[in-house]
Amino acid sequence: MRLSQTFIKTLREAPKDETAVNGALLTRAGYIHKEMAGVYDFLPLGLRVLENIKNIIREELNKIGSEEVLMSALQNPELWERTGRFSDQEVDIWFKTELSAGGVLGLAPTHEEPMVNMVKKYVSSYKDLPFAVYQFQNKFRNELRAKSGILRGREFLMKDLYSFHTSEEDLDRFYAEVEGAYERIFERVGLGDCTYETFASGGIFSKFSHEYQTILPVGEDTIYYNDDYSLVLNKEVFNDEVLAEFGADKSGFAETTGAEVGNIFKLMFKYSEPLGLKFTDEDNATQTVYMGCYGIGVSRLMGVIAEKYADDKGLIWPETVAPFKYYLVGIGEKGLARAEEVYRGREEEILFDDRDARVGEKFADSELMGIPYRVVISDKTLESDSAEVTGRLTGQTSLVKLAELFK
Amino acid sequence: MRLSQTFIKTLREAPKDETAVNGALLTRAGYIHKEMAGVYDFLPLGLRVLENIKNIIREELNKIGSEEVLMSALQNPELWERTGRFSDQEVDIWFKTELSAGGVLGLAPTHEEPMVNMVKKYVSSYKDLPFAVYQFQNKFRNELRAKSGILRGREFLMKDLYSFHTSEEDLDRFYAEVEGAYERIFERVGLGDCTYETFASGGIFSKFSHEYQTILPVGEDTIYYNDDYSLVLNKEVFNDEVLAEFGADKSGFAETTGAEVGNIFKLMFKYSEPLGLKFTDEDNATQTVYMGCYGIGVSRLMGVIAEKYADDKGLIWPETVAPFKYYLVGIGEKGLARAEEVYRGREEEILFDDRDARVGEKFADSELMGIPYRVVISDKTLESDSAEVTGRLTGQTSLVKLAELFK
Repeated sequence: MRLSQTFIKTLREAPKDETAVNGALLTRAGYIHKEMAGVYDFLPLGLRVLENIKNIIREELNKIGSEEVLMSALQNPELWERTGRFSDQEVDIWFKTELSAGGVLGLAPTHEEPMVNMVKKYVSSYKDLPFAVYQFQNKFRNELRAKSGILRGREFLMKDLYSFHTSEEDLDRFYAEVEGAYERIFERVGLGDCTYETFASGGIFSKFSHEYQTILPVGEDTIYYNDDYSLVLNKEVFNDEVLAEFGADKSGFAETTGAEVGNIFKLMFKYSEPLGLKFTDEDNATQTVYMGCYGIGVSRLMGVIAEKYADDKGLIWPETVAPFKYYLVGIGEKGLARAEEVYRGREEEILFDDRDARVGEKFADSELMGIPYRVVISDKTLESDSAEVTGRLTGQTSLVKLAELFK
Repeated sequence: MRLSQTFIKTLREAPKDETAVNGALLTRAGYIHKEMAGVYDFLPLGLRVLENIKNIIREELNKIGSEEVLMSALQNPELWERTGRFSDQEVDIWFKTELSAGGVLGLAPTHEEPMVNMVKKYVSSYKDLPFAVYQFQNKFRNELRAKSGILRGREFLMKDLYSFHTSEEDLDRFYAEVEGAYERIFERVGLGDCTYETFASGGIFSKFSHEYQTILPVGEDTIYYNDDYSLVLNKEVFNDEVLAEFGADKSGFAETTGAEVGNIFKLMFKYSEPLGLKFTDEDNATQTVYMGCYGIGVSRLMGVIAEKYADDKGLIWPETVAPFKYYLVGIGEKGLARAEEVYRGREEEILFDDRDARVGEKFADSELMGIPYRVVISDKTLESDSAEVTGRLTGQTSLVKLAELFK
């Protein structure tokens, strides 16, 4: 992409109402635009990051045999009334709206009910199970407050996966596969060394659920961890009774804050029972389908990565999610001409700063935007047939032969 | 993809409430699931078609230098009040909802207002222009009736492109580029020979707008065309006065029905003026930005393709948008084993019917699903080291050497 041809510019000042680091930096660097508190647009660079994260998640979920679908935001109350979840007393973050033709609709804050109802059409026998279905879908949650940038949204992108099984053993088997996939996902997006599977309070059928917490100063959750992070617990289950189950006590645990980037639940019959998702087993007996559900907050994950890696100069994207891998600057007549040549055919990898601007401004923007490698080609570097490559994370600069540049 | 491993099955019966051909066939073939009238989920095969169409549109719009973004559904009324479009009298298809923190929000039925407001941050001088920005975004429209399958939705996927210019000449130049891109898009998705640029009533600043109408029996628009389709007009402008401008009269025109798959508008100052989108020209004078907008109904386009190509056996997808290019069936022990070999490494191209089912059932499903080529490998075809390949559109069968199969 040529910077001279995008409509986006970096902004000198952080917006005054943007108190979170991720919101302020992503706005200044031209990744997002705020519509209102908790509601953001994704600009070209921001959309590229979001798509990179989605593709990593998609690859890992496809590997464990999940299938992608796309469900609607508009919800028929009838389904949710069967689980008691359309009531504002039960679920206090609904956005509701009126249908012209009559009746109330909801905007999906999650999708268990329509998902169970949809798959019902395809499940009759044990032969139809197991399977797992996921989507990337905007969720709508009527939060009273939303001031953490894209860490907590009123409209935000979530990946939600649901699995369907004939037995608890099979649910456990798949649950473990998702744990593996989640570990690989957080590793690949650059949060592997600071994201921990955390015990949190369970639902009706299981004692605990698992959250994935990224250690983060502005995280909204309080978590406790032991020396080697082999046992991490959300504050809500950090008590003597629970700790005893793990042969531990409160000594040796430290407190910190985490941002919940994912969660996994053994739902068991919580939704399949009230919504009548049944199957016929080998003995022709009718049984209820066992279920699990597994979420990742995709736009939140982008915000967490932004917060985690930021420094006083701006964003720092891990290569795997960066909108572009290289930020290219040509200096001097020969340097510019050679940069043009280098750029050709690599439009998807290189953000080419071909603007008529000062070099200092270009360098500052490359740092603010957080592109992993700044590549400078000048008359001087050309003397040794090289480019000067600077890593955004390390700050280290080295001369690299042009022929070796993208290897 | 292995059919034995997807949760989707074809359905024998069309749902009773699904009167439109596209809705009935797409549901029976396992592409979509209806949540309520005008609101559908996209199942794995349906999502693949939708993504294929999106990618064709994306490629053509990127070619003419447009940039992709993603805006929010939730809308702040304040912006829309400045153009008078938040009023239910002015725009009668709003879905509105209440924010817990106080105030009303809307669900975007289109995005001119937030788009103009967003780009304002980046436009000050003539040097910042021209540019064009698009998105694939769900639109929400509170239609009183919705019974045409995915041809008319209450929640539907649209591609909306907006362009920004310093002069009408430059707007006209880009408008012509979009006409070219649209022609290529409709050609590539398989509707080139039945989709026509059509004169329709314009807005405040231009006499006409252009619609793209696909000739379709169930289309909602009445259109008139001359012998060679060189002049096509929407009923709303088919009158003596307008025809005189083209040196024509009503004789020689025939009436038919069309489905509007796209439209393009010279907006001029309609939104930039009330929302204050200005720029400073070469003489340091303040001017208002010239605008165009250009839509394509993406989910509708999928429905139109489904309607257009269907026959009594089911769907028929053009290769460019088909979820898979090949439907593979192995017959007999050797045939099955060889099919397994052929499938390996081509999981993205081949829908492999590896189910334990009758061959007749497999053939019927391949036709209902509308996969372009059915490839059958049997002990018999293997005698000549071949597979039997049948085109879904032509019905023609030929023996193809296995070594030549995917060439």
